[in-house]
Amino acid sequence: MPNNPVLNHHISSQFNEDLQDVNTKFMTMGGLVEQQVANAIHALLDTDAAMAIDVQFQDNTVNRYETEIDEALTLILARRHPAAIDLRMVIAMSKANTDLERIGDEAAKIARIAQSLCEEGGSPRGYMETRHIGNQVRVMIHDALDSFARLDVDQALKVLLADADIDREYQSATRTLMTYMIEDPRHITRVINVLWVLRSLERIGDHARNISEQVIYMVKGFDVRHTSVEEIEQKVQR
Amino acid sequence: MPNNPVLNHHISSQFNEDLQDVNTKFMTMGGLVEQQVANAIHALLDTDAAMAIDVQFQDNTVNRYETEIDEALTLILARRHPAAIDLRMVIAMSKANTDLERIGDEAAKIARIAQSLCEEGGSPRGYMETRHIGNQVRVMIHDALDSFARLDVDQALKVLLADADIDREYQSATRTLMTYMIEDPRHITRVINVLWVLRSLERIGDHARNISEQVIYMVKGFDVRHTSVEEIEQKVQR
Repeated sequence: MPNNPVLNHHISSQFNEDLQDVNTKFMTMGGLVEQQVANAIHALLDTDAAMAIDVQFQDNTVNRYETEIDEALTLILARRHPAAIDLRMVIAMSKANTDLERIGDEAAKIARIAQSLCEEGGSPRGYMETRHIGNQVRVMIHDALDSFARLDVDQALKVLLADADIDREYQSATRTLMTYMIEDPRHITRVINVLWVLRSLERIGDHARNISEQVIYMVKGFDVRHTSVEEIEQKVQR
Repeated sequence: MPNNPVLNHHISSQFNEDLQDVNTKFMTMGGLVEQQVANAIHALLDTDAAMAIDVQFQDNTVNRYETEIDEALTLILARRHPAAIDLRMVIAMSKANTDLERIGDEAAKIARIAQSLCEEGGSPRGYMETRHIGNQVRVMIHDALDSFARLDVDQALKVLLADADIDREYQSATRTLMTYMIEDPRHITRVINVLWVLRSLERIGDHARNISEQVIYMVKGFDVRHTSVEEIEQKVQR
């Protein structure tokens, strides 16, 4: 795991250990969630029903991490009264924790659809788009977590820019799938399932963006939600 | 506004004032968000394009509230070091703040669809379902906020039960709309727009549920996310 500069400046070694522990747990959860998304997409595109079931089952583990991380953060707030960047780190991790759990939920939704498409026979319509957007979204999760671990504002900005791409590609893929449905209404149900998958991927991109916004908040101390990427870049460089 | 029992037990009057202020802001934001959802549904069902535009515009106000409430909560953590139920109230409000903002986002999405359906001419397909689920979801938001204001665990439980209903009705409405599309593919694009609206309403129900879970956490001190309603009822009565 990359070295986190916040975790090495404390006089109280107990405080340091507490923050270190919750940070390790957060990063482990992040790795698991990243894998869940990869597995859900794999299950869908390669009609792997066993993996689709496994992803839905593993969502419980993700949920347990969310609960444990929130508990640990609450204890840190109650006992250690963190200030300045430590407090921002606790707040950022609490928000990012919710986003990671939601990414896990979306992966489970994709896996549920993958499972039913395995049973009905696959729908190659829209799979190219799914593979493409799926790969981009996986990179976004990875970069968001990496920027969180290394407090890297530039990498966080990269994720914000990638999210704008995803939104455009999602719009375009949706239009393509609409055309398929109108041309061949026999496959409406299957194509709508692929539409739901694309929407889940787009939501995952939003959550990766949220995590990156928390990195900027943690490092720079200002809230960049509801702000355009251009404005954020200007603020960060100031 | 109903009387909040947490806000009257402090020895430090400054602490009391700070919590009171952020609580007032949170409730004002809640009222605005509730109105946004009502207006978005009205704009859709009564093809009111002006209102559809207004809802999208007002989303900025919702976003501003989110930022201000998080700022106020961070200041309380940094300066007042809340403990026990005060700390849980700050944490619960921080989480519920995110949910309120997301409800605002979904209202804006519904309004965007309403605007485009106004331009293309309405789609009466699925409007009965939208009206019905829309009304239920509005009651859920109202009850979730009311239970938050009054720390009323029973009312919070009512919201959790209502969410299970919404999920069932959403499934059933989705199946009905799929049938419409297969029977009459000429209206696929419009019907899919109504599907997106129903999905937004279902998400709003989830957010109202999340807020109610935070009420239970705040009052009882345990985390009931990822727990079935039956288990929660047992835990609460213990």
